[in-house]
Amino acid sequence: MERNILLTIEYDGTGFSGWQRQPDRRTVQGTLEEALSRVCAIPVQVDGTSRTDAGVHALGQRASFHGDFGIPVERIPLAVNNLVSEAGKDGDMRIRKAQLVPEGFHARYDSKGKKYRYRIHNGEEMPVFLRNYRYHVRGALDAAAMCRAAEHITGTHDFACFQAAGGTPRKTTVRTIRQLTVNESAVDGGRLIDIDVAGDGFLYNMVRIIAGTLVEAGQGKIPPEAVPGIIASRDRRRAGHTAPPQGLYLTEVYY
Amino acid sequence: MERNILLTIEYDGTGFSGWQRQPDRRTVQGTLEEALSRVCAIPVQVDGTSRTDAGVHALGQRASFHGDFGIPVERIPLAVNNLVSEAGKDGDMRIRKAQLVPEGFHARYDSKGKKYRYRIHNGEEMPVFLRNYRYHVRGALDAAAMCRAAEHITGTHDFACFQAAGGTPRKTTVRTIRQLTVNESAVDGGRLIDIDVAGDGFLYNMVRIIAGTLVEAGQGKIPPEAVPGIIASRDRRRAGHTAPPQGLYLTEVYY
Repeated sequence: MERNILLTIEYDGTGFSGWQRQPDRRTVQGTLEEALSRVCAIPVQVDGTSRTDAGVHALGQRASFHGDFGIPVERIPLAVNNLVSEAGKDGDMRIRKAQLVPEGFHARYDSKGKKYRYRIHNGEEMPVFLRNYRYHVRGALDAAAMCRAAEHITGTHDFACFQAAGGTPRKTTVRTIRQLTVNESAVDGGRLIDIDVAGDGFLYNMVRIIAGTLVEAGQGKIPPEAVPGIIASRDRRRAGHTAPPQGLYLTEVYY
Repeated sequence: MERNILLTIEYDGTGFSGWQRQPDRRTVQGTLEEALSRVCAIPVQVDGTSRTDAGVHALGQRASFHGDFGIPVERIPLAVNNLVSEAGKDGDMRIRKAQLVPEGFHARYDSKGKKYRYRIHNGEEMPVFLRNYRYHVRGALDAAAMCRAAEHITGTHDFACFQAAGGTPRKTTVRTIRQLTVNESAVDGGRLIDIDVAGDGFLYNMVRIIAGTLVEAGQGKIPPEAVPGIIASRDRRRAGHTAPPQGLYLTEVYY
């Protein structure tokens, strides 16, 4: 019986060359398809919601696949997770949930939006255990300035200034940022600054460029009130740097 | 001018084949000596306090070295840390402190004891981000039983039952455990159980076997009141399993 399945996937991006399948490289999609093909005993190809870059993490990536296979849907997560685990410990990717969806449902095309978190460790020293999971920014950041800059980014705008070269060509660079918040908390050896951003869609490297722009606002390099002009200019060079991949987490996909 | 230096070192053990220098393997000692030799412009050999195994972490490893070199002592940490950092992020080892100590001081021989932490994630699911940093135990552990078992281990005993084969031969297997505590707290997707153990010295794999024994006490396999008999037996086979390396952290060395 042909069935269509939607997966919720968590992964540590450190050991992967990103989401998308590539020959001779370890990718999340490739690892997942290989394990699913063994578990389902048919060749499986998945459609992922977000093509995350190398080093980028996910708590709630989604992917769908369909096929005629025997294993009960609720057994797929454990079977795949056991296959991809390492000696004596869990693996670096894990299916959190597998659910039956109507034929025709597509993880990417049917998505109504996504949410990302960008995590910054702000302090002179950072525990080595965080190096793959945070952007380390040494000098003190002004979180209030970052919040003010974030307010100018929220809403519907042409975000060409936050688009890196090299992505899939898009019909339009207009997107809606529904939420963009900056939260800080005290942690061992510094402060944790979390940027949460939700929107209907994102351009190539858009979240990392927004994070880099907010960091530069926090450093006093970009005045918050300059942000509307930067957006209006549609000029990538006027926005901040592209923050590194290891701080970025795909947290949720909306349907 | 000949100087003797004591270092405090933090490392993520995941990417190292343990502390001890080995040909053709990436080890903490080897990486540290290579960087120190460049920074000090002389061949440097360090004496570490604890020969941690592959996968074991350290927050407060100590190592000493002496030599006639020019760089001011306080500049050594930053110079070494910059050398061992990776592209776009910090490295997986870091010197936290370098201090001048009297000639004749030795990081290992002068140590009066050490403290370790063993970290367990107890719950059906564990975030993938913790797989290199926790021991994942699925079924619910009885932390009160673990505490009662720990009380029987505290004190001065012949700990032959907690010694793995294959370590450096020791004159005696009598050691003093000054402190052994079990603490639990709620975390994402389960409970974090931390075992803290301080003592004057430890046999090969002793902390990991104590952790495995406490886990089995928490699972009801080893009754806490059976622990004195297990210690008296001096029989490794009667103690619990050796808990995996990724849960173990060397936290402090006492002088």
